Amino acid sequence: MKAKADKNKLRFRPHFKTHQSAAVGEWFREAGTNAITVSSVSMAKYFAANGWDDITIAFPVNLAEIEEINQLATNINLNLLIADHEVVKLLAAELANTVGIYLKVDTGYHRSGILVEYNSDILKLILNVQDFPLLQFKGLLVHNGHTYKTKSRQEIKTIHQNSLEKLVHLKKYLQNNQIDCEISMGDTPTMSVIENFDGIDEIRPGNFVFYDVMQVALGACMADDIAVAMACPVVAKHMGRKEIVIYGGAIHLSKDFIQGDDGSPIYGKIVLLNENGWGNVVPETYVKSVSQEHGIIKVNADFIDKVMIGDFIGVLPVHSCLAVNLMREYYTLNGEKIETMNS
Amino acid sequence: MKAKADKNKLRFRPHFKTHQSAAVGEWFREAGTNAITVSSVSMAKYFAANGWDDITIAFPVNLAEIEEINQLATNINLNLLIADHEVVKLLAAELANTVGIYLKVDTGYHRSGILVEYNSDILKLILNVQDFPLLQFKGLLVHNGHTYKTKSRQEIKTIHQNSLEKLVHLKKYLQNNQIDCEISMGDTPTMSVIENFDGIDEIRPGNFVFYDVMQVALGACMADDIAVAMACPVVAKHMGRKEIVIYGGAIHLSKDFIQGDDGSPIYGKIVLLNENGWGNVVPETYVKSVSQEHGIIKVNADFIDKVMIGDFIGVLPVHSCLAVNLMREYYTLNGEKIETMNS
Repeated sequence: MKAKADKNKLRFRPHFKTHQSAAVGEWFREAGTNAITVSSVSMAKYFAANGWDDITIAFPVNLAEIEEINQLATNINLNLLIADHEVVKLLAAELANTVGIYLKVDTGYHRSGILVEYNSDILKLILNVQDFPLLQFKGLLVHNGHTYKTKSRQEIKTIHQNSLEKLVHLKKYLQNNQIDCEISMGDTPTMSVIENFDGIDEIRPGNFVFYDVMQVALGACMADDIAVAMACPVVAKHMGRKEIVIYGGAIHLSKDFIQGDDGSPIYGKIVLLNENGWGNVVPETYVKSVSQEHGIIKVNADFIDKVMIGDFIGVLPVHSCLAVNLMREYYTLNGEKIETMNS
Repeated sequence: MKAKADKNKLRFRPHFKTHQSAAVGEWFREAGTNAITVSSVSMAKYFAANGWDDITIAFPVNLAEIEEINQLATNINLNLLIADHEVVKLLAAELANTVGIYLKVDTGYHRSGILVEYNSDILKLILNVQDFPLLQFKGLLVHNGHTYKTKSRQEIKTIHQNSLEKLVHLKKYLQNNQIDCEISMGDTPTMSVIENFDGIDEIRPGNFVFYDVMQVALGACMADDIAVAMACPVVAKHMGRKEIVIYGGAIHLSKDFIQGDDGSPIYGKIVLLNENGWGNVVPETYVKSVSQEHGIIKVNADFIDKVMIGDFIGVLPVHSCLAVNLMREYYTLNGEKIETMNS
């Protein structure tokens, strides 16, 4: 992903919410990364304490955390996200230091941000931001989370193309009004499938650091690209209904799921662990349900004979961000412990 | 729940996986509780360290934790759950101290346990258990988790009645073979709706300590019975589509949901916080989606005018066990901090 950003002369600002780890952050630093994205003030504090000094909090400003924001802005280059006059007013009244401001624009996901079509509202909001010297307007920030609802790589590309066209149109409108701005785009599915980055200044993918079963289903990566697995002990076998029970449930994997071909939910795919990591995804075998601590795995006939109670098997998570957040620490294949902000 | 158990002369062995807290455990102790259920060895260790000396781990034995199990069994009365000859053999070979053994029986949930109809298999397994002096056979343990798929209180009662009839039948068969045993039953929906406990020796509900939106939907409790809420700051308002955005997502509430009347998912219900706690559930207002940190709330027209960016609102969780596990600590209405095993 870094090579892709370099090749296209983009600022690479990877989202660190997936790994949440200073140690994994160092791998990024060694690859030349110096700007990052996070999703909370507490995550910004953690990474700032670990030597990162250029951080965007890609979440609407939470005014209850203004003290922490002021503290951060004293020490690092901090960028905040806004989409509302009221927030600008309150922020300007409470800020003690300069911050960068990105305006959150909604090009179709409809989670947060101002609709991209409301160009005069957007202009007014930027002019309002520019009234306050501590607020340094930087650009437009978009997260096309609706790529997670797609059924093909082409559909991801189409969403991106539509989104970018609208943004470029907005940017021209702003330029005609003497406002220059960057365009910052996120989401791993898009950044994984597109090759043409014309018009974009900054990318903020995060999940790609580990990928997961959902990203494979979207066509954003191959199963071989998944870089994290949960080692779970087998605690029961049910030969009759071809199911095994693992100690690995909703408090480990989360309750996120994808839909299988027959519409039934899949909470994880299964691999056999080996000395070098793990093997291929076991066919016709998946986590079919999770309760608090239990995972129930539907297994193919060959596999159930191979696995014994007490064995550890690997579960590739459906959503690696949530699994990492729940597990709080992990190990490299060499047995080195990796801590996260929640360890 | 304690009064119900006392009235029916049942052993009350509440499941502590919902609150996960020594402080909340003390409230149970003050009410006369001295036996508890947990769902993991680590949870057993935590509560044993906090003075509980009669604990059932209601999860299939995880042989990878045999050292911790031996340690626990030295200090407390520990009950384990088995359903397999292989586990009995391995456990008997590794155990250093006496443990109580419950046999997990499956009366229809099909998560784990031996099918209740396989009476001769069950007899053989119990006789196998009785071959080992360190394994003290105690009884049959059932969790009717399929009550969570029901649409009415009557349906819950019917599941319970069918389950209990099969268990009583099995118990008689075992008595005819000179084996006496207890019947231990779990699950909050059943224990909330039934009044007749004939034939049952022990109950193990857990969720009732806080209840949640799912239990209200099942008819197990009223909305007023929900005893835990998440205070979330409002970070954005979208007047056009009548939605607000809160800082409260999948890493706070979990991704568990119930289905609304129109089939769409509901990840939490909304209340207004006040000095004494919170008010009634706000009508036509609910968490419609969650991503890692964001919650999107569909709100009714009155409510959106009342709520300002920066306000805190209350979210009643769909699944309190998972929300507590994610949040790791909570506060009483007096502002007293309550820690959990994960604080």
